[in-house]
Amino acid sequence: MNRSVKTSIVLGAFILFLPGLMLAGDETALVSAAALDPSPNKSFADFLWITMAGFLVFFMQAGFALVETGFTRAKNVANIMMKNMMDLALGSIVFWAVGFALMYGTDISGLFGFSNFFLSDAIKSDGTLDAWMYADWFFQAMFAATAATIVSGALAERTTFAGYLLITVCITALIYPVVGHWVWGSGWLAELGFYDFAGSTVVHGVGAWAGLAGTYILGPRIGRFSNGKVNAIAGHSMALGTLGIFILWLGWFGFNAGSTHGADVSLARIAVTTTLSAAGGALAAMITAWSRVGKPDLGYTLNGALAGLVAITAGASVVSPASSLVIGLAGGMIMFFGTRLLERQGIDDPVGAIPVHGFAGVWGTLAVALFAQPPYSSSFTGLLFGGSAVQLLVQALGIAAIFAWTSATTWSVCKMADRLIGLRVSEAEELNGLDQNEHGTSAYPDFFGVNDARKMLDLDLEQELALVKDKKIDIPLDPR
Amino acid sequence: MNRSVKTSIVLGAFILFLPGLMLAGDETALVSAAALDPSPNKSFADFLWITMAGFLVFFMQAGFALVETGFTRAKNVANIMMKNMMDLALGSIVFWAVGFALMYGTDISGLFGFSNFFLSDAIKSDGTLDAWMYADWFFQAMFAATAATIVSGALAERTTFAGYLLITVCITALIYPVVGHWVWGSGWLAELGFYDFAGSTVVHGVGAWAGLAGTYILGPRIGRFSNGKVNAIAGHSMALGTLGIFILWLGWFGFNAGSTHGADVSLARIAVTTTLSAAGGALAAMITAWSRVGKPDLGYTLNGALAGLVAITAGASVVSPASSLVIGLAGGMIMFFGTRLLERQGIDDPVGAIPVHGFAGVWGTLAVALFAQPPYSSSFTGLLFGGSAVQLLVQALGIAAIFAWTSATTWSVCKMADRLIGLRVSEAEELNGLDQNEHGTSAYPDFFGVNDARKMLDLDLEQELALVKDKKIDIPLDPR
Amino acid sequence: MNRSVKTSIVLGAFILFLPGLMLAGDETALVSAAALDPSPNKSFADFLWITMAGFLVFFMQAGFALVETGFTRAKNVANIMMKNMMDLALGSIVFWAVGFALMYGTDISGLFGFSNFFLSDAIKSDGTLDAWMYADWFFQAMFAATAATIVSGALAERTTFAGYLLITVCITALIYPVVGHWVWGSGWLAELGFYDFAGSTVVHGVGAWAGLAGTYILGPRIGRFSNGKVNAIAGHSMALGTLGIFILWLGWFGFNAGSTHGADVSLARIAVTTTLSAAGGALAAMITAWSRVGKPDLGYTLNGALAGLVAITAGASVVSPASSLVIGLAGGMIMFFGTRLLERQGIDDPVGAIPVHGFAGVWGTLAVALFAQPPYSSSFTGLLFGGSAVQLLVQALGIAAIFAWTSATTWSVCKMADRLIGLRVSEAEELNGLDQNEHGTSAYPDFFGVNDARKMLDLDLEQELALVKDKKIDIPLDPR
Repeated sequence: MNRSVKTSIVLGAFILFLPGLMLAGDETALVSAAALDPSPNKSFADFLWITMAGFLVFFMQAGFALVETGFTRAKNVANIMMKNMMDLALGSIVFWAVGFALMYGTDISGLFGFSNFFLSDAIKSDGTLDAWMYADWFFQAMFAATAATIVSGALAERTTFAGYLLITVCITALIYPVVGHWVWGSGWLAELGFYDFAGSTVVHGVGAWAGLAGTYILGPRIGRFSNGKVNAIAGHSMALGTLGIFILWLGWFGFNAGSTHGADVSLARIAVTTTLSAAGGALAAMITAWSRVGKPDLGYTLNGALAGLVAITAGASVVSPASSLVIGLAGGMIMFFGTRLLERQGIDDPVGAIPVHGFAGVWGTLAVALFAQPPYSSSFTGLLFGGSAVQLLVQALGIAAIFAWTSATTWSVCKMADRLIGLRVSEAEELNGLDQNEHGTSAYPDFFGVNDARKMLDLDLEQELALVKDKKIDIPLDPR
Repeated sequence: MNRSVKTSIVLGAFILFLPGLMLAGDETALVSAAALDPSPNKSFADFLWITMAGFLVFFMQAGFALVETGFTRAKNVANIMMKNMMDLALGSIVFWAVGFALMYGTDISGLFGFSNFFLSDAIKSDGTLDAWMYADWFFQAMFAATAATIVSGALAERTTFAGYLLITVCITALIYPVVGHWVWGSGWLAELGFYDFAGSTVVHGVGAWAGLAGTYILGPRIGRFSNGKVNAIAGHSMALGTLGIFILWLGWFGFNAGSTHGADVSLARIAVTTTLSAAGGALAAMITAWSRVGKPDLGYTLNGALAGLVAITAGASVVSPASSLVIGLAGGMIMFFGTRLLERQGIDDPVGAIPVHGFAGVWGTLAVALFAQPPYSSSFTGLLFGGSAVQLLVQALGIAAIFAWTSATTWSVCKMADRLIGLRVSEAEELNGLDQNEHGTSAYPDFFGVNDARKMLDLDLEQELALVKDKKIDIPLDPR
Repeated sequence: MNRSVKTSIVLGAFILFLPGLMLAGDETALVSAAALDPSPNKSFADFLWITMAGFLVFFMQAGFALVETGFTRAKNVANIMMKNMMDLALGSIVFWAVGFALMYGTDISGLFGFSNFFLSDAIKSDGTLDAWMYADWFFQAMFAATAATIVSGALAERTTFAGYLLITVCITALIYPVVGHWVWGSGWLAELGFYDFAGSTVVHGVGAWAGLAGTYILGPRIGRFSNGKVNAIAGHSMALGTLGIFILWLGWFGFNAGSTHGADVSLARIAVTTTLSAAGGALAAMITAWSRVGKPDLGYTLNGALAGLVAITAGASVVSPASSLVIGLAGGMIMFFGTRLLERQGIDDPVGAIPVHGFAGVWGTLAVALFAQPPYSSSFTGLLFGGSAVQLLVQALGIAAIFAWTSATTWSVCKMADRLIGLRVSEAEELNGLDQNEHGTSAYPDFFGVNDARKMLDLDLEQELALVKDKKIDIPLDPR
């Protein structure tokens, strides 16, 4: 089968699948839908805050899209934007049909949930609708989309669009929901006492490890590593990249403070710990870069802020503001050295998704066991405050288990996608940019850029590959 | 009279008009203003949610500005930004002075309202202020600005700035408020039972039909259609365009869920239907484009998300999540084929405002009659759920009446503007870009682009027009 | 000492300073932290609104970053983004450690506060935590960051990065908090009855006057003034600049309406006055520019909207909507003529920070005394409504005192920074752009721009300076 035939099959499957979903949902609704139940134990304030927080988390999609596109090349902008739009769109649909059921449905042996597909349980036995379930789903769906979109960054600039769609469907339908069930859906890690308040590992770890598996299979972009040298491939718009970081930081207030799941005055304190950790991450990354590469580098500083945000996510509600600053400072440093480590391993992560969401997430998840304070968590106390070492072990176990599950499943999905529809674009496509070959467009047709200059050279593929691998062209001018 | 004289007259009228407005408002306030009445039947939660929702709708202005500018050429960016800033600024002032009075003032024969100019009724007879009226006005004013800004896209890249200002004043002062009165201000369509929850037709239809009338009068941009061929004119920044879509989607949560007009737990369920419809629209548009043009096109996909949002706007509160997905999927497809249809008719709609806000809005307004479910609407039931066909007829009647009113009035305004101050820029101005001739600026002076290259050719107008019509220059490189 | 040694010292001081801060905060927390006290006199609605408002004010950081970068040249983007990220990051940390204590701590002779460093007072004597203090700090911290970031614009394109960091630390640690204490922290101006609701002078004035002192010391950018002529240096992306204005306007709703500091139905009315003043500012600036320079200029119009926002900030809660429109219109005009005035004085303010935040802020602060209405303020009444002239004098006194303090302290800090680490980059660095020399990067490596063209000329420094001063190169093409 050639590739367009395979692509048609995948698309056909979507189209056939969807009416099925709809009928399933609608028929049930038709039979018994009745008055929207305000869920007496929930006040409007609960609804308002969780929904507003969901809006903020939604906006993180724009932030991720900007960071990913800003940190990569102009010839791949449309592709990256398509991926970011579609992981949200497909992710929402799939998480409604399947993911939420596996995450919060009736527990099966602590491993996954299995009920409430298509939100069918929102229709209660007395015929009324459970209004709160919609609020809960909305907030959770935005989390699922976040986990999915993190992967996009690690796979940027070389993945086929159809392959990416398949990966994103699997993450939002299966990979993330199962992890979510383990920790937040009364699964086995919850039973053990694993604590991850807003998802340093549950959300960001899953995104990062899935990205790691994917980038490992894909291999690095052409020219990223040559003759044992690491070549920087500069992002095409640091203005958009920075805007993305500001938007992510804003959205993170919803991510963390919204994880109270309702009206809770601790939202303000969580906003404080989130702010100080992000600030610490940016500061530490800037200083580390300044001392190690000689300049206060923008890219590292921005990723440092993100690393601080990821690191505080697990413990935002249970640590003191001072601790949050320490957690952020360490997060920023871990991100810096983690980035260097990956480069030395020859792993190409175009936007730094793995050090930001993975390494800083591990640190943040462990930090809960070190810094948690008595009053904010009834179940345990951080080691620095007299708690037991068992919590640290539980945190480490959870991290390991989630790493193993996510890596193994994503690996399988990527291998399947590679066989089924191809996971990596051809060398010629990669050099031309994915916008042209995958989407038939150009993101900046009014400007003259390096890709236009490249085309004017009119080289054949072999000549160009030789030059790029020698870092002569195509790698944007890097003044360093 | 030459054009600058005419322009001065228009500006002078603004300046003369404004102090009048102020005195009117202030004198009254002076006499009787007293304590701000918390409006006992409204809680702070009502105030908070409607105001926050208004902030979200406000932010849609940025989204529209980015989509319009991203989807058009670099040489018209400043013009488009000026239009988007001024339809908000002028629209707010005019809607305060006049529009709100015509929309929600004392009903005159079901046709329009007529009282409460300058919000004078906010000062109640007992001398206290009606706090709720400010909340209500704020939310409604953002809707009026939305209706106005949609038009801007359809008229992009060829309309005089002064002409556009006149159109936008008429829309926010008269055209939109009258429609709003019919449906939401106890007018004749409300009496008939026409249902449009948040404005698929009332807001988006008005914007689209006004845009259609305008673009019909203006005619297509130079080079858009040549020798019976449709030429794509690519947008200059798909990064900004995509960011605009994300912002619009975010703002739409306020648009739809805020249309509960106060504390109502259904806001979460509305967020769910809004999400699934937008997702469906993006998905259907992507698949349709993929199968029809061979590539998953970014522009169509983004407009598909918007079409899904427009389509769910009329029924967001009365349909099930599954229905919302169906509504969105159909909305995305309708947008795609509607875009093609307009192109075949030789109608130039640079950003797709008419298929997105018009065609998908018609579908969404009709869809209410098909999909509405018993519990969420006491007055009627969708046909698919046992309702009567009468509702479908009422919806169609409302759509037709609003189309007729909006088209007729906008037509007249455009003709008047054309006579008074000129509606279309000269061919030379259009080729140079409106930024230079209308605003004396350049949006990207630091970058070398196609417009700079064009100027280096140093052609005279006739030579250039011949080339452009033959699609040799000025049309940005489109790799398709 | 050479510069890198000096830089290391500054960085080292940060690193040494921070663990001290942490321990201070954490030790106390360790001893007595207990249950989070919901602060009985505050409801969740208070927490929700002030925190949401804080999120909106946070987002203004992105708006300022975009305006500053959009209004300046492509070769300085990374530097500007770094400054905007770090004034937020450092500002948050410093305001937590020191600033908040000086602003709201126990009053010392009406001059400054002195207690509650590191939020230590959040731990109450009974061992519970004061939940409200976190909410209050978060909102106030965002204000401090706003004051700091305004300065960045006035100093753009020629300030050393390390020098800027020092300035921003001093503003958030000392300069702004002392002013804040005078007016909002029961200081001497509060005693006198000085009224500045959300900070036309307290926040925006401080930012502007600090910027004025800084730009005066720095001197103008190369080529800005030559042979008695004022040369416009066009911004590199009016699309990003405009987006920044929309984001600022959005954030300002939190800034002004959030300054109720809790659940208060007047938030909606404040949103109305904020909207009308911003609209008036944009309109007046557009008309003024149209009549004075012959074109409706985008830059002036955008700054007009900002000027309207700054002007209404002092009185947003105490003036009528009609008055707010007048205040905004005047604010827009004052900004226009103020910009011209500064240019004639040879003062280079790249983004117009001083006329926008300073001059319009003075106007807004005085306007309170003219337009305030009886019911909304128990303590005084605007002159136009029968109030006393004393209020006007108090307002003027406050403006003068804050101008004096801010100018004097910033002057000293800038002189100190100049001596210690150098405040202005070398001429070669300025011509190359700060991105390359200060940060070792390029913000748009994929595009060919004027800076690339400039480098291709391969001039030596003397030749280039001569040309630039003659406005032959480096100044982006300005079609006017």
